[in-house]
Amino acid sequence: MVTNEDRMNCSVHLSEDGTRLVLIDQTQLPNRQISLTMDKAEDIYDAIKRLAVRGAPAIGICAGYAMYVLAYHLGEEDRRDYDSFHAAMSRYADYLISSRPTAVNLSWAVKRQMALIDANAGKDPEELIKLLKAESIAIHDEDIEMCTRIAEYGLSLIKPGDGLITHCNAGPLATSKYGTALGPMLLAKERGIDIHVFSDETRPLLQGARLTSYELTKAGVDVTLICDNMASVVLKQGKVQAAFVGCDRIAANGDFANKIGTSGLAILCKYYNVPFYTLGPLSTIDMDCPTGDDIKIELRDPDEIRNMWYQEPMALPETKCYNPAFDVTDHTLLTAIVTDQGIIYPPFDVNLKKLFEK
Amino acid sequence: MVTNEDRMNCSVHLSEDGTRLVLIDQTQLPNRQISLTMDKAEDIYDAIKRLAVRGAPAIGICAGYAMYVLAYHLGEEDRRDYDSFHAAMSRYADYLISSRPTAVNLSWAVKRQMALIDANAGKDPEELIKLLKAESIAIHDEDIEMCTRIAEYGLSLIKPGDGLITHCNAGPLATSKYGTALGPMLLAKERGIDIHVFSDETRPLLQGARLTSYELTKAGVDVTLICDNMASVVLKQGKVQAAFVGCDRIAANGDFANKIGTSGLAILCKYYNVPFYTLGPLSTIDMDCPTGDDIKIELRDPDEIRNMWYQEPMALPETKCYNPAFDVTDHTLLTAIVTDQGIIYPPFDVNLKKLFEK
Repeated sequence: MVTNEDRMNCSVHLSEDGTRLVLIDQTQLPNRQISLTMDKAEDIYDAIKRLAVRGAPAIGICAGYAMYVLAYHLGEEDRRDYDSFHAAMSRYADYLISSRPTAVNLSWAVKRQMALIDANAGKDPEELIKLLKAESIAIHDEDIEMCTRIAEYGLSLIKPGDGLITHCNAGPLATSKYGTALGPMLLAKERGIDIHVFSDETRPLLQGARLTSYELTKAGVDVTLICDNMASVVLKQGKVQAAFVGCDRIAANGDFANKIGTSGLAILCKYYNVPFYTLGPLSTIDMDCPTGDDIKIELRDPDEIRNMWYQEPMALPETKCYNPAFDVTDHTLLTAIVTDQGIIYPPFDVNLKKLFEK
Repeated sequence: MVTNEDRMNCSVHLSEDGTRLVLIDQTQLPNRQISLTMDKAEDIYDAIKRLAVRGAPAIGICAGYAMYVLAYHLGEEDRRDYDSFHAAMSRYADYLISSRPTAVNLSWAVKRQMALIDANAGKDPEELIKLLKAESIAIHDEDIEMCTRIAEYGLSLIKPGDGLITHCNAGPLATSKYGTALGPMLLAKERGIDIHVFSDETRPLLQGARLTSYELTKAGVDVTLICDNMASVVLKQGKVQAAFVGCDRIAANGDFANKIGTSGLAILCKYYNVPFYTLGPLSTIDMDCPTGDDIKIELRDPDEIRNMWYQEPMALPETKCYNPAFDVTDHTLLTAIVTDQGIIYPPFDVNLKKLFEK
């Protein structure tokens, strides 16, 4: 059962009085922990656009709450009757979705709230506002429950004293409560199971340094930050018994896309005989995508390598940079996929199919 | 034959009038190309200490020239007779060596100059100054010739159109003329052979971004800068036909220490069937060191990961960081060792022994 305390501990939640949206401004981490409390559409739009809230599930939760909070604060005119209410909420829906058009969870949560309004056509706006609040909490609770199941399944793969390695950030900030890849680590801490985590800093945007090592440190998990190119050394030294990473998309054959650097870590784990797991909800598996070759990889601004974060440029302005945001890890490098519906082992093509036939 | 133009094109050389030491301040690269001209012991000491000159061979060349330049500028008192001269130069020798006590090439070059003075006991200081100048040029020329031989051997492993990958910086700035790992690339450019180079940025100190991509760009070599964790992707795409890296120390079995991240790159190359070469002079091979396990690895300041280069910290101050400066690459991952005396193939233990028996 999800409690209100569970929700309040997440990076996105409702204010104590239940009328406003609260979120941790992730752009300020790890140096400043700043909570933003919002009830205006422009502020929420801005928070999503400038990545104050990031991580697909967290954006979805944020959007669900946003639709309720904006409805709650509608003026007299807009809450006069169903049609006025519907018109106002439709405008907010379009406006919120336009803040980050490629964020699937954003439009998914907004549309889920609009579908609720449509399904209750003609009802009193005061009643609809209550329904939207309940639905926004349901969206949040579903994510908490899913993350909890992934964390439990992942924890079953850990022995006391294990060393673990992770890449990028698939933690509570990006999702809810436990996150995905960080879930088993946080759950281990809760249960008093002694583990040690190595966190890749994850160039170029350093999510491992700024977010993963921050989240694990704050939770009291024993974590050591390393540069991505140091993973080979800690693996060689026998300090790592398993690798846990998130996933952006899993193909039907088990190939999966995740933050750039994941496939390199998987090859190192294979070389050193360390099990390599990816963790994510069932919704991450795309059975319409046959293999990793069918996943298109985003190329990002070269200045993330040449310039970003630095006091002065680290390479000549004319230096060519290649900056893929993600890479594809071959299913042959993967020990298992940990989902909210259980742990899937090879042969992935057969077993993923079975899972979806159920 | 080494020409004066060859010498003047190096990062360390004598001034036009042959009386002062000139070096490129490597701490200012890639944003400012600043040459320092020096004839005072304090300035030279400072340049070595703050890494304005870096790279073992470059430091050796610098120290050789420094001993001559300091002798040239000795006052009347110190050049009165052999004993005064010897005493003054001994003081300079101790002082220079203390600027970076662990730099083997520094003390090697200083001692070589002192040995020359000792071997010419009783001679006129004016005569000794001429000998020191000739010796400093000899030290430089030997390095240029050695790098040229390594570059030639390395070039024999490259086909027109090849893509190459390198890690850290083993280029002219750190040595002379061609450098070691970058030598075949620069020589290919000179000969009009079309190649493409991927340069790992090399966290945490970013020598690949700041120096390698700078040197190759300035030389007109087609180079693309990538984050270390992107190597897996360019290898997978078939864009790389060989990896060329430097080496800090090679054990008798072929295991070798080089900048952190080298061993990870070697494992990726093995996985993708890309030949992996290390390039360095014979002096890098330590036959008294049986295997890589006998090489002690320097651990550096955690703030290089947490803080350095950034406008603000990228991780919490209490975040533990593991920051090894080098790693050891297993000889089973190595295709060949390219030395100034030829290319050594496996079995390395047997073939390195043969080489030294010659």
